Amino acid sequence: MTGIPIFETRVLPEWIDYNGHLRDAYYVLIVSLATDALMDRLGLDADYRARTGCTLYTLELHLHYLHEVLRSDTVAVSVRIEAADHKRIHATFEMRRVGDPALAASTEIMLLHVQQTSDKVAAAPFPSQASAALAELQTASAALPAEGPVSRRMGLRPPIS
Amino acid sequence: MTGIPIFETRVLPEWIDYNGHLRDAYYVLIVSLATDALMDRLGLDADYRARTGCTLYTLELHLHYLHEVLRSDTVAVSVRIEAADHKRIHATFEMRRVGDPALAASTEIMLLHVQQTSDKVAAAPFPSQASAALAELQTASAALPAEGPVSRRMGLRPPIS
Repeated sequence: MTGIPIFETRVLPEWIDYNGHLRDAYYVLIVSLATDALMDRLGLDADYRARTGCTLYTLELHLHYLHEVLRSDTVAVSVRIEAADHKRIHATFEMRRVGDPALAASTEIMLLHVQQTSDKVAAAPFPSQASAALAELQTASAALPAEGPVSRRMGLRPPIS
Repeated sequence: MTGIPIFETRVLPEWIDYNGHLRDAYYVLIVSLATDALMDRLGLDADYRARTGCTLYTLELHLHYLHEVLRSDTVAVSVRIEAADHKRIHATFEMRRVGDPALAASTEIMLLHVQQTSDKVAAAPFPSQASAALAELQTASAALPAEGPVSRRMGLRPPIS
């Protein structure tokens, strides 16, 4: 693990596609469920959401698919807090198949803390407890080596002639 | 539409999360289903896959979440072929809620044509029919204006003091 363990799941049969492996979209579902686990860790859980109307929205997501995941696999996800400010979190999630140290996927995500009211959604500052938890996880992340590729502008290089 | 219409779907109830809107991962499922529709358009359909053992694998995906999608929405996806070589496709998918011209999401994806055999998966060149179809779609894409943000290295800029 090169991050903080945050989520683990068996691969469900309905996540397998016609290629016989985990469909690309279900890598993202696993990351989404890992984000829910991160929210619990930060105190932004179901109780907090019901009490305050505040939650996290995803602004942007980058995913590198590095290895096939099969029906028989269990996957473990670790998280690194790369940066945070008063309302945003830049996090990296690394996914591995349990029993294999190779990365199956590396994901970067940008999350925004918002308050939902009946007529609008507006960015809102983190409560102090969540900011403190984020600072602690960011410090812990910085002490661990990163392994996955970083996000980048996508493109095909011209073929070498 | 600022691309080639390729896929449309109603939002399913199980795609809605605790925030009352389309879960981030299901934007990607819709893009994944739109990729299947693109494969059909290119002749890389179920019959081709069964006959040749060839298919497309996703290498990388970037998604900008631009607008909430609700339970009552139907979403339409258009595609642009940004670039292609003998084995890869760089495509952009734009998602809109039917009845609203604003973008709900913009996605870039890199796809690799592979052949699956019993003991390995290896990159394989496109059949000439698919290359011709790709060239045609790329020309059609270039004639249409692009709207969504392009992929980039992710990060939080330091706050302005």
